[in-house]
Amino acid sequence: MPVDIVVMKAVNAENAARAAEVRAVLNQSGVLGLNLMSSPGSGKTTLLEAMFKHWGEDVRSCVVEGDVFTSIDAERIAKHGVEVIQVNTEGSCHMTAHMLKEILPRLALENTDVLFIENIGNLICPASFDLGEHRRIALISTPEGADKVEKYPKLFSVSHANVISKADLADVLEFDIAAVTKQLKKLNPEAPVFVTSAKTGEGVAEFCEWLLSENKETDN
Amino acid sequence: MPVDIVVMKAVNAENAARAAEVRAVLNQSGVLGLNLMSSPGSGKTTLLEAMFKHWGEDVRSCVVEGDVFTSIDAERIAKHGVEVIQVNTEGSCHMTAHMLKEILPRLALENTDVLFIENIGNLICPASFDLGEHRRIALISTPEGADKVEKYPKLFSVSHANVISKADLADVLEFDIAAVTKQLKKLNPEAPVFVTSAKTGEGVAEFCEWLLSENKETDN
Repeated sequence: MPVDIVVMKAVNAENAARAAEVRAVLNQSGVLGLNLMSSPGSGKTTLLEAMFKHWGEDVRSCVVEGDVFTSIDAERIAKHGVEVIQVNTEGSCHMTAHMLKEILPRLALENTDVLFIENIGNLICPASFDLGEHRRIALISTPEGADKVEKYPKLFSVSHANVISKADLADVLEFDIAAVTKQLKKLNPEAPVFVTSAKTGEGVAEFCEWLLSENKETDN
Repeated sequence: MPVDIVVMKAVNAENAARAAEVRAVLNQSGVLGLNLMSSPGSGKTTLLEAMFKHWGEDVRSCVVEGDVFTSIDAERIAKHGVEVIQVNTEGSCHMTAHMLKEILPRLALENTDVLFIENIGNLICPASFDLGEHRRIALISTPEGADKVEKYPKLFSVSHANVISKADLADVLEFDIAAVTKQLKKLNPEAPVFVTSAKTGEGVAEFCEWLLSENKETDN
């Protein structure tokens, strides 16, 4: 499939240029940009909801919701009084920096501390596309099974932090959190691992605190 | 992103031609070809393991395992004494008919009743690529959440049967099986819905029976 590879390279060069533009705008506005990546149903939206509850009005967030067709997640976010814009990729399995570049002028960046980009539920392609974020967060949820780190290493190695979500289900699913944490640290030693449960609240405060301690001015 | 679209069409035309060749070979050998599609961790491999246990030596299966990089699933299948070939897509998020075409000569089709193709864990791209199968099976597992049908309608509407897997977890996860079944039937009225749990064995026999009753000679 050489055609596929050639095209991917061309798209990626274009994408990198747009991503640099996005990052420059975020830097100028003092906004921390975060790219959340995981399987469908790993709990990205639910984690965001728990974070908004934790922060209350202390941290001004806005969200760009990526989805193939619907606006289900954006409607959930909007209920928390957080600014949200839906991007429908119309069949494409990942977001691109072009999409972000087009959307930025519509966001009230001057009133924003943190911009969350919730990527399409997919463990493969999102790992290859810089969206202009400062930090990439990869989630693995306990029901997906521990083998996902080994099967999709790129996503968990390009990330700046890895999150094991739905920790409350670990026991019933016999998901060995300690072993997966060790595996994530071996694959990506510099990325901290957070163990969270949006249901019980476990780990949400720690993750929120780490995010705000990250210096967005450093390279991504 | 017009480039993406143009390329996808070109790739798809090529793919359709290879898929027809694959299907012709399967027809000639009297082999039923099945394409299994779902999110990562929805339980495709575990369902296959339950089916092999159910069939014993009555049905001669072989498996083509798609994975981005590893051979974890192929090793699981091999333990059941079933012929298995691993295809690594090296970063690509779906399998193509070209991959199948190259692999067919390596399979002992003369000793095979059913060929399972376990696609890459992804709810988006696999829905667009005919692999030369006779029947497409889409899985949604209870931990992914009921909204996946609405969010990824294409996968569940191009399928010939839809499977709700990990049914044993439905209660603890508050996953409404009846409501999702209704939604699947509305989206794709001709496809039967099977509710399965590889853990308890629920629904495995019914799904196996339906598969063998399908006439592979009809168009896909």
